Amino acid sequence: MRTLNVALGDRAYPIHIGRGLLDRAELILPHLKTKRVAIVTNDVVGPLYLDRLRSTLEAAGVRAASVVLPDGEVHKDWPTLNRIFDMLLAERCERSTTLVALGGGVVGDMGGFAAACYQRGMPFIQIPTTLLAQVDSSVGGKTAINHPLGKNMIGAFYQPKLVLADIDTLATLPARELSAGLAEVIKYGLIRDGEFLGWLQHNLERLMARDPEALVHAIEVSCRNKAEVVAADETEQGERALLNLGHTFGHAIETGLGYGEWLHGEAVAAGTLMAAELSCRLGWLDEAGVENIAALFERAALPVRGPKLGVERYLELMAHDKKVEAGRLRLVLLRALGQGVIHGDAPQADIVAAIEARCR
Amino acid sequence: MRTLNVALGDRAYPIHIGRGLLDRAELILPHLKTKRVAIVTNDVVGPLYLDRLRSTLEAAGVRAASVVLPDGEVHKDWPTLNRIFDMLLAERCERSTTLVALGGGVVGDMGGFAAACYQRGMPFIQIPTTLLAQVDSSVGGKTAINHPLGKNMIGAFYQPKLVLADIDTLATLPARELSAGLAEVIKYGLIRDGEFLGWLQHNLERLMARDPEALVHAIEVSCRNKAEVVAADETEQGERALLNLGHTFGHAIETGLGYGEWLHGEAVAAGTLMAAELSCRLGWLDEAGVENIAALFERAALPVRGPKLGVERYLELMAHDKKVEAGRLRLVLLRALGQGVIHGDAPQADIVAAIEARCR
Ligand SMILES: NC(=O)c1ccc[n+]([C@@H]2O[C@H](COP(=O)([O-])OP(=O)(O)OC[C@H]3O[C@@H](n4cnc5c(N)ncnc54)[C@H](O)[C@@H]3O)[C@@H](O)[C@H]2O)c1
Ligand SMILES: NC(=O)c1ccc[n+]([C@@H]2O[C@H](COP(=O)([O-])OP(=O)(O)OC[C@H]3O[C@@H](n4cnc5c(N)ncnc54)[C@H](O)[C@@H]3O)[C@@H](O)[C@H]2O)c1
Ligand SMILES: [Zn+2]
Ligand SMILES: [Zn+2]
Repeated sequence: MRTLNVALGDRAYPIHIGRGLLDRAELILPHLKTKRVAIVTNDVVGPLYLDRLRSTLEAAGVRAASVVLPDGEVHKDWPTLNRIFDMLLAERCERSTTLVALGGGVVGDMGGFAAACYQRGMPFIQIPTTLLAQVDSSVGGKTAINHPLGKNMIGAFYQPKLVLADIDTLATLPARELSAGLAEVIKYGLIRDGEFLGWLQHNLERLMARDPEALVHAIEVSCRNKAEVVAADETEQGERALLNLGHTFGHAIETGLGYGEWLHGEAVAAGTLMAAELSCRLGWLDEAGVENIAALFERAALPVRGPKLGVERYLELMAHDKKVEAGRLRLVLLRALGQGVIHGDAPQADIVAAIEARCR
Repeated sequence: MRTLNVALGDRAYPIHIGRGLLDRAELILPHLKTKRVAIVTNDVVGPLYLDRLRSTLEAAGVRAASVVLPDGEVHKDWPTLNRIFDMLLAERCERSTTLVALGGGVVGDMGGFAAACYQRGMPFIQIPTTLLAQVDSSVGGKTAINHPLGKNMIGAFYQPKLVLADIDTLATLPARELSAGLAEVIKYGLIRDGEFLGWLQHNLERLMARDPEALVHAIEVSCRNKAEVVAADETEQGERALLNLGHTFGHAIETGLGYGEWLHGEAVAAGTLMAAELSCRLGWLDEAGVENIAALFERAALPVRGPKLGVERYLELMAHDKKVEAGRLRLVLLRALGQGVIHGDAPQADIVAAIEARCR
């Protein structure tokens, strides 16, 4: 097992990464305020792992309530969130009860937001079970639900007490979801870790084959990168925005197609290529650099072009994005491979050309 | 105009109290990040004051969107909150837009919670227009909506950038609402300010007559008391719970009758008498002390007995209250007039007797 620390002062917390962690009550117990938890999961992950987690906790004398939500990004909405509140109130959970989110990023984002709001804040623990959640969404304290007019529009910054990434749970993950997670892994290399990018160039097939040692390494380095960025900029005033490489374009893809058509990571991959094309037009990357990125994503079975929504629609959807500041679109671009930069002055014509270059 | 400061480090903010403040753009402008605001009000307060506030802002070059919610505690719920999000998204408000809550505690709590959640947090300003909101709900950063199973169950701790209490707006307040606000004013005297309690004994009729000088003084002292408590204990781990004198009983009354039957302040008044009866049974207050409190509330035209819900129902509803810690009911009681205390060990029989003594 590897352990990282997210340095956030009195809100600091550990991330444990390794095998068989669902069986280890001693990792969880020190973080509970009382011997009560409320587990939030969904109808795909629940049947696979809920009983195991519950047995581990109950054997340690912890009382565990639970709610099983319907699976999917389409349910990352208020009515589903409200089912968590219904359970917490029906079970008379207290402010000192710990909410445990067991699942992918959707369960983590909703569980975290419910914990942030229930009685104005209860402690919570993330047990991410997708690669994407293990390397990205479970770390950093962003929580949210979607609104019909925009993704993640309603949420909170709220830190967990603990993140437990049991890589054994990845065994049951569909291949497409594994790939989606790799999009975020590659992202860390691109924005701030050239060395890791090199390691990925050499080890991508091991990750695709779910080699445990390679997975633990990739998750650890990814989390370390994310934790460093988050610690420097908890509420996304500056540097943290780097983590959004490919995301402004990507969110336009997700919203434009309707939530759930493309996976988040798939949209991010295509969006990253758009950002790379734009960086190329600004003279920061050469064409070989762009192709280098495309090749890596293709080895991870990820799309390197966005859907044909029409450039106008892309621009309209991007204007709704949170990265708009006083009407100006701030984009994360690449100064070089391994060096992301936040840029608010890209000429409209270049943005249009970059989108067009990467629409099917 | 009087100005107080709520000392919360980098989240500190001023409270201005006085006449004609709705016309003074110069009080608001320094607190805006950009020249855009989104005003949240309701269909009672909006017709009275929205145009004036909007003119003040627009004359100063501030663009103001707005939403007018249906009036009433029954609408302090998710569908109504969502109308704020709909407006913010339809108007393409950004994370840097400032939300302005113009109204009583319901508008303030919902506006504040919307601001806490929209894009994970936008700045907000409170312009409270009821006495209760001016002395209590607008100060301290508690925001929330109700859930069918409990009041204020879903919310956030989220501080405003500014509180603007224009006492001229109290001219249109119904008498019953003025009284309800006085319940919270009297509360500050009871829990921590014996001198203010003395002032109230002498000046209650001036307040009932809405004498501006008396109102400014009472609001200032109330806010100072609340601000001190909040600064010492922002997230209600300890001392802040003192502010809940009468509230655990009071929330049982509000929930038991259905939201909106009794006003919050009325329920608090009756609840405070239950707390006083219990304090008497514990030997802390004598009967004269209890009568002293009852007399003050009666001069403020407030109830000094709760509705006959049945003791069992009171206890059941109180068990749902947030002030339950590991199953134990923590109550705010009075050691003496002017000295509140948090107590978790009151014998059940005494709690029952106190409720019975104060049920019609
Ligand atoms: N909070 C953040 O900082 C952040 C960062 C990135 C993404 N996100 C959010 O995360 C979400 C995407 O997360 P995701 O990719 O994990 O999606 P997801 O939660 O929908 O999981 C993907 C699918 O895999 C299933 N699944 C989960 N674990 C499994 C397992 N071990 N075995 C088999 N199936 C399993 C899920 O039920 C789902 O069907 C999006 O809503 C996105 O907005 C949040
Ligand atoms: N956040 C906190 O710390 C806190 C503290 C105490 C109470 N509260 C909450 O505050 C709410 C009660 O607040 P409230 O008593 O202000 O109720 P309210 O907001 O419902 O206002 C009372 C009534 O007066 C009307 N009104 C408001 N201003 C007016 C004016 N100037 N002239 C004429 N009519 C006016 C309102 O529209 C409403 O009909 C409750 O929901 C309670 O939970 C919150
Ligand atoms: Zn992402
Ligand atoms: Zn109150």
